[in-house]
Amino acid sequence: MTTTIDGARIARDIRARVAERVAETAACGRVPGLATILVGDDPASAVYVAAKRRAIREAGMRDFHRHLSRHASGDEVAAVIDELAADPDVSGILLQLPLPAQLDAATLIDRIPAAKDVDGLTTASAGRLARGERGLRPCTPSGVIELLDAEGIELRGACVAVVGWGELVGRPLAQLLLRRGATVTVAHEFTADLAAVTRPADIVVVATGVRGLVGPEHVKPGATVIDVGIHRTPEGLTGDVRAAELDGIASRITPVPGGVGPMTIAMLMVNTLRAAEWNAVPKTVPA
Amino acid sequence: MTTTIDGARIARDIRARVAERVAETAACGRVPGLATILVGDDPASAVYVAAKRRAIREAGMRDFHRHLSRHASGDEVAAVIDELAADPDVSGILLQLPLPAQLDAATLIDRIPAAKDVDGLTTASAGRLARGERGLRPCTPSGVIELLDAEGIELRGACVAVVGWGELVGRPLAQLLLRRGATVTVAHEFTADLAAVTRPADIVVVATGVRGLVGPEHVKPGATVIDVGIHRTPEGLTGDVRAAELDGIASRITPVPGGVGPMTIAMLMVNTLRAAEWNAVPKTVPA
Repeated sequence: MTTTIDGARIARDIRARVAERVAETAACGRVPGLATILVGDDPASAVYVAAKRRAIREAGMRDFHRHLSRHASGDEVAAVIDELAADPDVSGILLQLPLPAQLDAATLIDRIPAAKDVDGLTTASAGRLARGERGLRPCTPSGVIELLDAEGIELRGACVAVVGWGELVGRPLAQLLLRRGATVTVAHEFTADLAAVTRPADIVVVATGVRGLVGPEHVKPGATVIDVGIHRTPEGLTGDVRAAELDGIASRITPVPGGVGPMTIAMLMVNTLRAAEWNAVPKTVPA
Repeated sequence: MTTTIDGARIARDIRARVAERVAETAACGRVPGLATILVGDDPASAVYVAAKRRAIREAGMRDFHRHLSRHASGDEVAAVIDELAADPDVSGILLQLPLPAQLDAATLIDRIPAAKDVDGLTTASAGRLARGERGLRPCTPSGVIELLDAEGIELRGACVAVVGWGELVGRPLAQLLLRRGATVTVAHEFTADLAAVTRPADIVVVATGVRGLVGPEHVKPGATVIDVGIHRTPEGLTGDVRAAELDGIASRITPVPGGVGPMTIAMLMVNTLRAAEWNAVPKTVPA
């Protein structure tokens, strides 16, 4: 019997807790605010940004938004980031990716002060994570950890296989899991025998962008499977895992949609709240 | 038949190449320089710093040294770091650890500009490593990679078990190996079944500080074993690996002493040279 992990419900609970805390903070006259920066008119990006802004408003936080032309120069984007960085009402800054080709994403992201880096993607935030220092963590990997915690899955001493070594999920997730005391293996495109790496694992997290990559041949009975992938298909959304084939094998599995996806926005809310609280006491997270 | 990896020879070769390159650089009027900062009178630290300074001079680089009282305040150490950071003749700054109890090591280390962080221990350098950006890497893990490269061992696709999750070796080494395309598992004190993790590995790197932890029960025939540990015993120096018991099982193994140890200073020479070249063109590694 395989349990489906209800990421949508867990994300709702987290967002509700954030909203409560925001209400308390607001009572003290401090309302957290998120600034989203959208450059250009990529339809998918516009949809993502709209969803984030809606969630921010639902949580009772202030919604600052900047929409720049797809022809915006690096200096123009940098100026907007600097202005938001200096604005005490802006707790967090999110630069929606991907950026138009003429812009250098890494340079612009690193312009966001660590204290307002609610996406946790700056080099400074990566350093804080690598060194185990307090800081803002990337939303999707933190969301995976929250899901596992919400399911009461013990991480200390657990064998976890992270399939996929991307900058946004695989690499930071491996660090978060290691900090929690898991024995972590990172597999990727150069891994010769994926099943050999994933079959011993108590928890398998898949974030490869390869549709249906992982199936029963990769998972030991009773393991927990977290599917970070999302693919639009004629039959609807699907992930990196062949979930149906794992029914009765995995003890728990995240669905697509409704698993990890909703957690990403929930953790963005958490990060924005944290940033607001840390910015209130700058020493904890110096920019 | 097990081959002993001659770290002393490989380190000598690297230091000779650095010296050649330094001579070329000097011909252009730029002589790299390392500033070592020793706070207090810890005898072991004094020995380590002396060895580093000797190596720097042997490589034809400039040796800047500051010795502060064991009662030095954080402000005093910070002032010395700032002065060396501003000195164009100082390519690299090394703050010898451990520091006296009244000093906050993390804060003082992070005061070293990334461009001069030849120990690769600042949060900024950790971030550059985590993000795969150009930067100075910690000396001992880079030394392990250099040893494997010198032995012609293919890292891409290799299964590597890193035993030990310390900040100085295990964690950064896992990142370096991953960047090279290895399938990496990090095991540590919470790992339930160490042998289960290490036996499948093509390469086992041990950096736990636990004398003789790893033996034949942990290593598959033909694997390469790298021993980062070093322990002083009545019988002399020994490592984290029971090397004698692995004779005839491992294909290659590093001795203690004469394995990884000499590589650490060699990589410090390499980092100081790199820092000098990067500082000559600040854009590549902004402080």
